[in-house]
Amino acid sequence: MKAVIISVGTELVTGRCVDTNAAWLAGQLVHLGISPIRNVTVGDEVEAIKSAIELALAESDVVCVSGGLGPTPDDLSRHALAEAIGQSLIEDADTLSQLEAFFDALERPMPESNKRQALVPRGCHVIPNPRGTAPGIHFRGPGAQLFALPGVPAEMKATFETYVRDLLADTRRTVCPGSARLLCYGVSEAWIGEVLADLMTVESNPTVGITASEAVIAVHVHATARDKAEAEVLVDSAAAEIRARLGHACFGIGSDTLQLAVVRLLCKRRLTIATAESCTGGLLAACMSDEPGSSAYFMRGYVVYANTAKSDLLGIPHAMLEGHGAVSEPVANEMALRCREKAGVDLAVSITGIAGPGGGDPPRKPVGLVFVGLAHDTGVIVKRVLLGSHLTRGEIRDRACKTALNLVRLHLLDVVV
Amino acid sequence: MKAVIISVGTELVTGRCVDTNAAWLAGQLVHLGISPIRNVTVGDEVEAIKSAIELALAESDVVCVSGGLGPTPDDLSRHALAEAIGQSLIEDADTLSQLEAFFDALERPMPESNKRQALVPRGCHVIPNPRGTAPGIHFRGPGAQLFALPGVPAEMKATFETYVRDLLADTRRTVCPGSARLLCYGVSEAWIGEVLADLMTVESNPTVGITASEAVIAVHVHATARDKAEAEVLVDSAAAEIRARLGHACFGIGSDTLQLAVVRLLCKRRLTIATAESCTGGLLAACMSDEPGSSAYFMRGYVVYANTAKSDLLGIPHAMLEGHGAVSEPVANEMALRCREKAGVDLAVSITGIAGPGGGDPPRKPVGLVFVGLAHDTGVIVKRVLLGSHLTRGEIRDRACKTALNLVRLHLLDVVV
Repeated sequence: MKAVIISVGTELVTGRCVDTNAAWLAGQLVHLGISPIRNVTVGDEVEAIKSAIELALAESDVVCVSGGLGPTPDDLSRHALAEAIGQSLIEDADTLSQLEAFFDALERPMPESNKRQALVPRGCHVIPNPRGTAPGIHFRGPGAQLFALPGVPAEMKATFETYVRDLLADTRRTVCPGSARLLCYGVSEAWIGEVLADLMTVESNPTVGITASEAVIAVHVHATARDKAEAEVLVDSAAAEIRARLGHACFGIGSDTLQLAVVRLLCKRRLTIATAESCTGGLLAACMSDEPGSSAYFMRGYVVYANTAKSDLLGIPHAMLEGHGAVSEPVANEMALRCREKAGVDLAVSITGIAGPGGGDPPRKPVGLVFVGLAHDTGVIVKRVLLGSHLTRGEIRDRACKTALNLVRLHLLDVVV
Repeated sequence: MKAVIISVGTELVTGRCVDTNAAWLAGQLVHLGISPIRNVTVGDEVEAIKSAIELALAESDVVCVSGGLGPTPDDLSRHALAEAIGQSLIEDADTLSQLEAFFDALERPMPESNKRQALVPRGCHVIPNPRGTAPGIHFRGPGAQLFALPGVPAEMKATFETYVRDLLADTRRTVCPGSARLLCYGVSEAWIGEVLADLMTVESNPTVGITASEAVIAVHVHATARDKAEAEVLVDSAAAEIRARLGHACFGIGSDTLQLAVVRLLCKRRLTIATAESCTGGLLAACMSDEPGSSAYFMRGYVVYANTAKSDLLGIPHAMLEGHGAVSEPVANEMALRCREKAGVDLAVSITGIAGPGGGDPPRKPVGLVFVGLAHDTGVIVKRVLLGSHLTRGEIRDRACKTALNLVRLHLLDVVV
């Protein structure tokens, strides 16, 4: 079964608001085994809403419209629906008395304009709204059915959950979906695309797709089957194959974060950690204290932004700072070593780099050059990365933290880095 | 002039991601005097993208497509565009050498699949991407022009800003819009609504609206006029009136942050600052090192997460930690004082609190209880705040930092807090 989602609102089409309803509705439909094929956003105009509805009814089995059911003159979804299906609007007596009861309960007079909300195209059903005054409308056409829902997210969700979901769940499902998301760091999207190329053909089941966000690459697996168990088997076996191909590049699933992957490994081995940061200025410490209960493994952080802080707090020799520069392999090495010693922890991570936009001295020390150090029980590892001057200061700081977290993760997995 | 925005991505159409690109692009177009009439989201399928492009080219003057320009097999926007305009894809030599240079600068080999990104439909122009490997594509048709932009928000914005905006700004405009955004902290949305009630009527020009995000409240002013100068006068006079009514609650405009407001005041007075944090675990230090050039004022940060770190690094007496607890007014006071002394700075800020979700001991020490200290040349201020246990751990840590930044800001403005 295919679905089209229509979002109505001039505030959406002009970009004053980000539309979150469409993604929520799409997720719900996918969960019910229905495939959203398109989302269309139009302004508060009868013609635009009407033609979006006509096209959607012709091309899909389920149409969800959100917005345009309020009491003000710019709420036009019910009029557009009436025109699209060639029916007139009639006043629904039950709805009118429910609206009156709603205002009575709040001890407020009902504004005249709310009466519009009792208008429904002939032959349609009213969907009760447990969270507000805008009732939804259910149209059952010969080929497709349409649900017009309120635009306020809480009301849209409430009307969907109390009426639409059960109704769609009762529809005989032809397909049952399953999905998984595998998260990777430290490899390129292109590399993953090459490694998984044979799995990424459009017609396959499961389908495999790749997205990237803030240098974390997600591999999405989506399967459809006749029942949930079968869908799960399809997803699980594809995910296992993908995980095997990606190896240690894959750090988690679902909404995991790199810090969570590190935390799990630290807790498993009962290890403690401390941080010493220059260019990231506390971001790595903030990552390490992100999870509840972090006092079990995260002890302290040195934010040694100024060179005097590096020598005062960690005892980095002045001669080393002057000779090699603060952004150098020896300084990263020394920061990690001294931090581990002073904090009395199992692992110490250091970061020193040039976050930019100024301060670079190419080609030897360009913006985006970062050294990450990790002191452990038998030595120190220092990793040099060029994060690229095309990134913003914020992105370089973020990637520097992620590089450090990934170094700790790979070390704890005994991967040679 | 009318515009259609097309968002491409199976992750968008199935609701795995909320599409923020469409709203951003719509806002930019509105700002240029162009009216977005529709936004269509389709999955990674050539046919779906192609028909969305064909319809958009027929119905509007400007088409912006975002997404589907990556290096992997599911990136199909360039193929769909080529089919829609009936041209074949050819390899652009300049783009290919720029891609090679991009990877050279990062000292990485270029994956074979990135070569796809140098393919452009014949007759189209390449839009350089200063932030990544996916170049955009500009098609100038007989009736409409189309810009295909990368899907990663930072890259989409960069390609729009460096190429598309100037090109569209040269096009003749009919109405000229103007807008401003004033940012507030430490007061409620309802209070601002009351203070500005008479300015918030729907039909007025400028219009005034309020939104809240992560405890920062934004007042939006939007005006339309026949020309830019007239629109600016309308916006400026309304913004001045609003600013006068809001007083010190308003900390900035546009995309300012609280830390930027603090940094400006520190720089103006040539003051230095250091941080001592417990529950925020480095977030405040990260805020203080957020801006380029922060080494001029931010010296160091103590992330004293464990109690031993509090005594080792700052010399907080064990008796005080045991007697009052780490989350207490005397400890916040002492952390700020000792931090200022040890770091040799003008101002030292401390944070200690219960970020949760565990660790609360209500009613005396509930989750969300935070003490913020500020040591300055003539004394220490400690502010106690209850951030509320309805907030998540992340939100409590964020609000604790903002409370600290706002305390510093108001102190530097000589406002009694």
